[in-house]
Amino acid sequence: MKDRLCHMTYRFSDRIAHIKPSAIREILKAPADADTISFAAGNPAAESFPVREMAEIAADLFANHASAALQYGVSDGYLPLRECIAKRQKEVWNIGKSVSAGDKFNDSTIIVSGGTQGIELACKILCNEGESVICENPSFVGALNSFRSTVSARTIGVPLLEDGPDIAELERVLDHTKDAHLLYLIPTFQNPAGLTTSLAKRKAIYEIALRHHVIILEDNPYGELRFSGEEIPTIKSMDTEGIVIYCSSLSKILSAGMRIGFIVAPEDITAKMVVAKQSEDVHSNLFFQMLCHKFMTEYDLDAHIEKIRAIYRRKCGLMLSCLDREVPSWLHYTRPEGGLFIWCTLPASVPMNEFVRACMDVKLRVVPGTTFNCDTEAPSQSFRINYSTPSDSQIEEGCRRLGAVARSFSK
Amino acid sequence: MKDRLCHMTYRFSDRIAHIKPSAIREILKAPADADTISFAAGNPAAESFPVREMAEIAADLFANHASAALQYGVSDGYLPLRECIAKRQKEVWNIGKSVSAGDKFNDSTIIVSGGTQGIELACKILCNEGESVICENPSFVGALNSFRSTVSARTIGVPLLEDGPDIAELERVLDHTKDAHLLYLIPTFQNPAGLTTSLAKRKAIYEIALRHHVIILEDNPYGELRFSGEEIPTIKSMDTEGIVIYCSSLSKILSAGMRIGFIVAPEDITAKMVVAKQSEDVHSNLFFQMLCHKFMTEYDLDAHIEKIRAIYRRKCGLMLSCLDREVPSWLHYTRPEGGLFIWCTLPASVPMNEFVRACMDVKLRVVPGTTFNCDTEAPSQSFRINYSTPSDSQIEEGCRRLGAVARSFSK
Repeated sequence: MKDRLCHMTYRFSDRIAHIKPSAIREILKAPADADTISFAAGNPAAESFPVREMAEIAADLFANHASAALQYGVSDGYLPLRECIAKRQKEVWNIGKSVSAGDKFNDSTIIVSGGTQGIELACKILCNEGESVICENPSFVGALNSFRSTVSARTIGVPLLEDGPDIAELERVLDHTKDAHLLYLIPTFQNPAGLTTSLAKRKAIYEIALRHHVIILEDNPYGELRFSGEEIPTIKSMDTEGIVIYCSSLSKILSAGMRIGFIVAPEDITAKMVVAKQSEDVHSNLFFQMLCHKFMTEYDLDAHIEKIRAIYRRKCGLMLSCLDREVPSWLHYTRPEGGLFIWCTLPASVPMNEFVRACMDVKLRVVPGTTFNCDTEAPSQSFRINYSTPSDSQIEEGCRRLGAVARSFSK
Repeated sequence: MKDRLCHMTYRFSDRIAHIKPSAIREILKAPADADTISFAAGNPAAESFPVREMAEIAADLFANHASAALQYGVSDGYLPLRECIAKRQKEVWNIGKSVSAGDKFNDSTIIVSGGTQGIELACKILCNEGESVICENPSFVGALNSFRSTVSARTIGVPLLEDGPDIAELERVLDHTKDAHLLYLIPTFQNPAGLTTSLAKRKAIYEIALRHHVIILEDNPYGELRFSGEEIPTIKSMDTEGIVIYCSSLSKILSAGMRIGFIVAPEDITAKMVVAKQSEDVHSNLFFQMLCHKFMTEYDLDAHIEKIRAIYRRKCGLMLSCLDREVPSWLHYTRPEGGLFIWCTLPASVPMNEFVRACMDVKLRVVPGTTFNCDTEAPSQSFRINYSTPSDSQIEEGCRRLGAVARSFSK
């Protein structure tokens, strides 16, 4: 017996045995000295948290509502928060149908533990083991890993172009993938690419999904963070037939660490998600659900969001102007109108992995594009950088380092 | 297209299609008037929350650590909290091996979003779709539903006797269930039965699990709540070979609504659980992780737990003395030494469902025993009642109603 267990080996489930921890989170955990600059994170800027207001609300909750806030809650979420989120989604984004408005189904709003749980639950209730999930390529690695670790999903990528997914390729993939029931999209300020899908393409995607009987999971964590350009209607706002699950969160506008997100979807779907959530974490942190409700009803959320937009408008502008100045013209990068990320693409002559390693050598962290590939074996010529987390001086110095690395590959 | 969607029907995954919401949570959600008394909940007593201390800590966190507490954290949990929980588990419960102590494996402590997430993650990483999980019968319905909704598990029950699972039957089930990799147990103050497995049986179970190559998931949410009798070592404290995953939480000693639990398990296992957790909710509420750490290091947790034990000692004693007085001797009930629940069993001549319905008719809620069956089709002669949630006068009046219902079946 002793020999056998000198180092115990465990039989893990097929779905988890081959999954690696997120490369980003591993990069973030790597030892760093004070001189290291990270463009690898995706954190909201710390100055975007309404700390004073949250402290006021927390004090009030402890003084007057502690018994409820510290007790078990219901799995679908704190009803007043569900109601005020539903109201805001309807008013600001035209999201959420109700039968009384003459529609064919009822949308319901439920609370989840961050957008990631919404993504995981959608997959858990809709996909059988080993089925395919169609995604933009590249896509949010957290979602890809969620699909893989929850149902051993095959993640099949549709190339993301400047104005959204390649529509012809989406048609072709759906024609050839009979076991796909879920189409995962981040149409606005996509992670990692920072790109936004055009209105025409959103309409086309909705029609294609309807025709192919697939449910669209529209992930919109950054939608409130537009700092330039025109708003584009969400796909959910076009959902007359009840085929869109809309997933978002308060992580980028109030606090990421509290883990409060939400889902707006037809109530038959949210009912199943609630059953699955009950067996995952029973409910999301109730104190912060109540805190968010008070913030949304007693403080000025819109004014707060305007402040955050101004922060990111400035920081993104700073990073773009630094890049414009520092890097050679052969290094392509996107010019986002919102969100947190810029996507940089190298010409075929520059090996991405070597480039990223050279950045590490000068103590600059970026995320290699392979991280975001649907096909984990596929190559990438791109890497992701972020402007919300680093300070202004880090943005400036980091872009200088990036320029120096790029010039070293110019020869 | 319109006809088809008059009421849209969705194809749900096999694992979720047939799962019902927890009967308990449905009972709790049913409309109730002021005169309704619920013995159905499993909530900690509201007076057990250290509200003043938590308010002090929260104010300090907002004043001095807000940027960290409201930001994204790491998936394995806030390191200082992991460390102080590991230390306490080692000191109080002799749980957690380390290689430096000459052992063959390292245990690691990670934070999860309540004990339920620990249970769900253990199953997710260890069980393939449709495999069997062995449980006590009856068992915690949240865990049973977690196994079902996560991996379509077959939940196979081993009868729970007064001193723990039927050992001969456990051997027999393991001999005949080749696809079982997980043995789920609540050895201390079991939910729903309130029973505690003897030391002799714990040792026997450990040896049997080792021999059959199954991992034990030891769930111990109530272990700190002993108010009479002698402490019995956990199975995890006997784990020399690295086959026990220990799951517990701070829900019953600090706050249930915050959703902070923890796992102590061999680090190969916790590493996989962290990967799966990353794809579920990224991390648990960071603010409350930091709050728990401060409570555990700057306040007197042991004294606080003593207070909670006194509350439940009194409330359990009150309920037992009311039952002793009110109900006929043919109604059997357990006499717990800790935890939150009493398990009542009817003689064969009294139909349990009719009895529970008669309770509902006199506005008394109890949980039918079928809820906790591993085999959802199997009958039950039992029902669960709880003494932590109702007030003293509700306990007295509820037991009077229970007695009246019982006497109506005596004829």
